[in-house]
Amino acid sequence: MSNRIITISREFGSGGRTIGRRTAEKLGIPCYDAELIYKIAKESGFSAQYIKEEGEGAAGGWLSPILSDRAMGPTNQDKLWLIQRKLILELAEKSSCVIVGRCADFILKGKADCLNVFIHASMEYRADRIVKEYGEREEAPERRLKEKDKRRAAYHRFYTDMKWGRAQNYHLCLNSGALGIDKCVEILTDLY
Amino acid sequence: MSNRIITISREFGSGGRTIGRRTAEKLGIPCYDAELIYKIAKESGFSAQYIKEEGEGAAGGWLSPILSDRAMGPTNQDKLWLIQRKLILELAEKSSCVIVGRCADFILKGKADCLNVFIHASMEYRADRIVKEYGEREEAPERRLKEKDKRRAAYHRFYTDMKWGRAQNYHLCLNSGALGIDKCVEILTDLY
Repeated sequence: MSNRIITISREFGSGGRTIGRRTAEKLGIPCYDAELIYKIAKESGFSAQYIKEEGEGAAGGWLSPILSDRAMGPTNQDKLWLIQRKLILELAEKSSCVIVGRCADFILKGKADCLNVFIHASMEYRADRIVKEYGEREEAPERRLKEKDKRRAAYHRFYTDMKWGRAQNYHLCLNSGALGIDKCVEILTDLY
Repeated sequence: MSNRIITISREFGSGGRTIGRRTAEKLGIPCYDAELIYKIAKESGFSAQYIKEEGEGAAGGWLSPILSDRAMGPTNQDKLWLIQRKLILELAEKSSCVIVGRCADFILKGKADCLNVFIHASMEYRADRIVKEYGEREEAPERRLKEKDKRRAAYHRFYTDMKWGRAQNYHLCLNSGALGIDKCVEILTDLY
């Protein structure tokens, strides 16, 4: 496979999705995130909103993927994991691209030529950013960030058995708050 | 303080010291590592070799800093920690520089304008590199790497209470094996 894939894992509010989208634009390759969720939705028949929530184990709180009873067979979340895995492999086969989230780093390991990136930032920077960018309620954005981070970490850990945010799992980890989003895009575009 | 400091933490064999030295050369600023150890040696009266070993808790195995009996007062290693802390603060005060290892990231936190970097690489890359660069015995370089990593992690954890290699503790984490040492130097020089 000669396609080159940038996978981006990111803390909520760190601007990882923005960095992915802008890097892809500069490189003239597609960026999959919301688009990917829609594709999963169409293929699986689940509603897009349901998938978005299940994707991070929201339905029963952040521990739900770990606590679900799998003695009854695969959970809905397990089925989604398989659908999304298949889709990500197909997308990587089709063309060079940027994939944000969805454990793409793990799914494509050894199967595609990847640059695996982790984007993070301080709690202060992210709290400030989600209020400004997403118009999130100003009350307790820190609590919301912690909850989202926990969900992503638990989801990632459960399906990949790799620790989320451990530097050694990535080619490159960038603090978007300290370096700035423009500089992160520049580094990724240049490295690609 | 208007000096700008690059601190480099690194896995053994990842080329972090080489990256630090070459970045400093390109920027025309000093790089402290072996030189720093000598300074500590002169100030403390300990031999340079002893300090090099104690610096990573080698004397009693990698757990020695945790297991030492401090009821008897500060250990030799604690004294060295204080001396090295003082020295690093002085160096950062004196001029812009690169400091490799010695928990400089933690020591200078909130006290200097720092770019905190973590350099890592796969076990295979590092094993290959220490055999080629340092002329290490070829037998079981992986075991030596694991032991060195454990020492550094334990030392760092004990004195800083921060997890070594956690992406969120750094502004930038680079996989030198995947990106190449030249590219790492280029990214750091450019960011500075």
